[in-house]
Amino acid sequence: MSWVLIPQGSHFPITNLPFGVFSSPGRDQRIGVAIGEQILDVRAADEAGLLPDLSGALRLDTLDGFLAAGRVYWRGVRSRIAQLLSEPAHEPVVSGMLVAQEDATMHLPFTVADFVDFYASEQHATNLGKMFRPDSAALLPNWKHLPVGYHGRAGTVVVSGTDVRRPQGQRKAPDASEPTFGPSARLDFEAEVGFVVGTGAPGPVSTADFAEHVFGVCLVNDWSARDIQAWEYVPLGPFLGKSFATSISPWIVSLDALIDARTDGPAQDPTPLPYLRSDRRWSLDLALEVTLNGETISRPPFASVYWSADQQLAHMTVNGASLRTGDLFASGTVSGDSPEQRGSLIELSWGGKEPITLTDGSSRSFLLDGDTLTISATAPGVDGTRIGFGSVSGTIQPSI
Amino acid sequence: MSWVLIPQGSHFPITNLPFGVFSSPGRDQRIGVAIGEQILDVRAADEAGLLPDLSGALRLDTLDGFLAAGRVYWRGVRSRIAQLLSEPAHEPVVSGMLVAQEDATMHLPFTVADFVDFYASEQHATNLGKMFRPDSAALLPNWKHLPVGYHGRAGTVVVSGTDVRRPQGQRKAPDASEPTFGPSARLDFEAEVGFVVGTGAPGPVSTADFAEHVFGVCLVNDWSARDIQAWEYVPLGPFLGKSFATSISPWIVSLDALIDARTDGPAQDPTPLPYLRSDRRWSLDLALEVTLNGETISRPPFASVYWSADQQLAHMTVNGASLRTGDLFASGTVSGDSPEQRGSLIELSWGGKEPITLTDGSSRSFLLDGDTLTISATAPGVDGTRIGFGSVSGTIQPSI
Repeated sequence: MSWVLIPQGSHFPITNLPFGVFSSPGRDQRIGVAIGEQILDVRAADEAGLLPDLSGALRLDTLDGFLAAGRVYWRGVRSRIAQLLSEPAHEPVVSGMLVAQEDATMHLPFTVADFVDFYASEQHATNLGKMFRPDSAALLPNWKHLPVGYHGRAGTVVVSGTDVRRPQGQRKAPDASEPTFGPSARLDFEAEVGFVVGTGAPGPVSTADFAEHVFGVCLVNDWSARDIQAWEYVPLGPFLGKSFATSISPWIVSLDALIDARTDGPAQDPTPLPYLRSDRRWSLDLALEVTLNGETISRPPFASVYWSADQQLAHMTVNGASLRTGDLFASGTVSGDSPEQRGSLIELSWGGKEPITLTDGSSRSFLLDGDTLTISATAPGVDGTRIGFGSVSGTIQPSI
Repeated sequence: MSWVLIPQGSHFPITNLPFGVFSSPGRDQRIGVAIGEQILDVRAADEAGLLPDLSGALRLDTLDGFLAAGRVYWRGVRSRIAQLLSEPAHEPVVSGMLVAQEDATMHLPFTVADFVDFYASEQHATNLGKMFRPDSAALLPNWKHLPVGYHGRAGTVVVSGTDVRRPQGQRKAPDASEPTFGPSARLDFEAEVGFVVGTGAPGPVSTADFAEHVFGVCLVNDWSARDIQAWEYVPLGPFLGKSFATSISPWIVSLDALIDARTDGPAQDPTPLPYLRSDRRWSLDLALEVTLNGETISRPPFASVYWSADQQLAHMTVNGASLRTGDLFASGTVSGDSPEQRGSLIELSWGGKEPITLTDGSSRSFLLDGDTLTISATAPGVDGTRIGFGSVSGTIQPSI
């Protein structure tokens, strides 16, 4: 129990305590921790001597130093914050360090080092396979042997709330002889879950060491221009169809807050190679919800994703690639078994052939200028609570 | 003419003056400029008040601040250094700021922000198309309409001289039913040319603005594990087959030093879309040379590359993607028309079917443990001189 008022259904009870970076009138950019409808000003708490200091890591304007400090420190800081926000004796001092979330501006919480995007949902990969290769097996031969992934553009990862300008580029209609240039006509979202690396490593990280390196989890919208992507992506993969923007939620939920959200992932057949095995995978029972202009259009279940995050991390580094603080890797689009659980418009509208209808009577195959797309999620927290991720949201601006 | 002794054939006459980062006994990591067989200690020259200071950009331990300072500053510093190294009046003071290259250790010269790798050589793309898709057209339909590219792993870009450990990973023989795990048996190099972004931009950069944003040029070896790549790359492109290491040369040659190396690129048919056109492309007449254990195995001509660097930059940002100081984009493997000009072993040995023979009697289809692969290049400098890039070199270490 916190002495802070926590409204019923809040994403941020005392069992969550996610980390982010905010500013507000009178407070320049700094680290904060969400609690109910408030933010604890972590810098202020540290300056008051209330937190375990480590070379000023808690006084920076990003989470970078905190992330680099490692798991023992993450746990020490978070458990001390839980104490400060629950023991009534601290209320007189600490209540002055709370800022209303509605008065705060959230910032990109950490410097994104490398950004990797996986393709780990079997339902999503199957849906796209059926649409793009109707005459072949929906899944490619490698898909159940390794978590397929690729590197995205780290420099265009933006925080929730940042407007997204419709990209221009080359696209070619299937029956056209030449490509044309112009605004994307098939702008889409992808509902994903991202993992934030705290502690780097010089080489391979085993599935067993996942929690030593990954600090926490956020929501990701991997905006996609399907027409640009379709024309460019052979043979080297997605490039400009993705690189214009990727949005992340501002609050990073720690693995420690998600310990009761762990769940058995889908059974894996064939049995993965040894480096991809673990006694207990880091599958997580996150319930995602996607809204378009406030109306729910999908509820993707993250627990259905085939390749878990520990398997993704082990794969990403098994070739000896080093890992850095700030590396971000995302699951790829999360889609469930049923049509209402699909995590992108290209799936929801089946390639544009079956537009979805909104309650205002309009229909969508892809996103229109002015549309606001929001992804949120909740998960089981500890002590029987339910915790949330807040949301990642973006509004489409027209091409210049 | 410099008062520094410049041996005949040196890569670093006074018309070059490339920038890098070095350390040497008694000097911690700092910026330097190559001249003959020496390095000018730029920090020392700046501390002595000999250079135009800008917020201490020249006293950092990377080029990051210098790169961010922009073209006017790049030119001012370089022309002042040319003056210091040519006017005899400066010799008494400045000669004490020279360090022998043989006594120096070179470091990664800048923080790599995003790394993009193109596929811009028609001969290379054609060779690979013939090998991998023998029954189809060698070039895919998009290839002559846009510079195909993808994002690589920025965190594993290393400086020349760094050993490269043979990666492990999944690979599947064409006739095998299941993949196996182990050290790559088809480890390759790719001889490429890289472009280093100095001044960032919030969105599209036109071909005309290329030189406002790109500071200079280096050599790149995009080490590639062909067996890992072949199994993983469908449909999202290369990932672990590339991400274990990418080596760059330590000296960044400024565009100003390469003004007389500009050359007409290959004629482009069909005419590219307007955003990819320029009055005069930034094609460069660089003569690359590849040696394996000291023996020349290829001489790829960079002037033959189809898509020029200004076209690559315009394409990379046309979707609105922002550009950052430290972004690195590379040409992709440079291969010329003749077999002796191929820029990778998979081409030189034609997929392993025609191993090359070295003078020691051994043969190579791909790289062996202990092999040292070096790429160097020269180009026309100003005033009829010839300048060079030094080299990028790496030695293969066995898998752990």
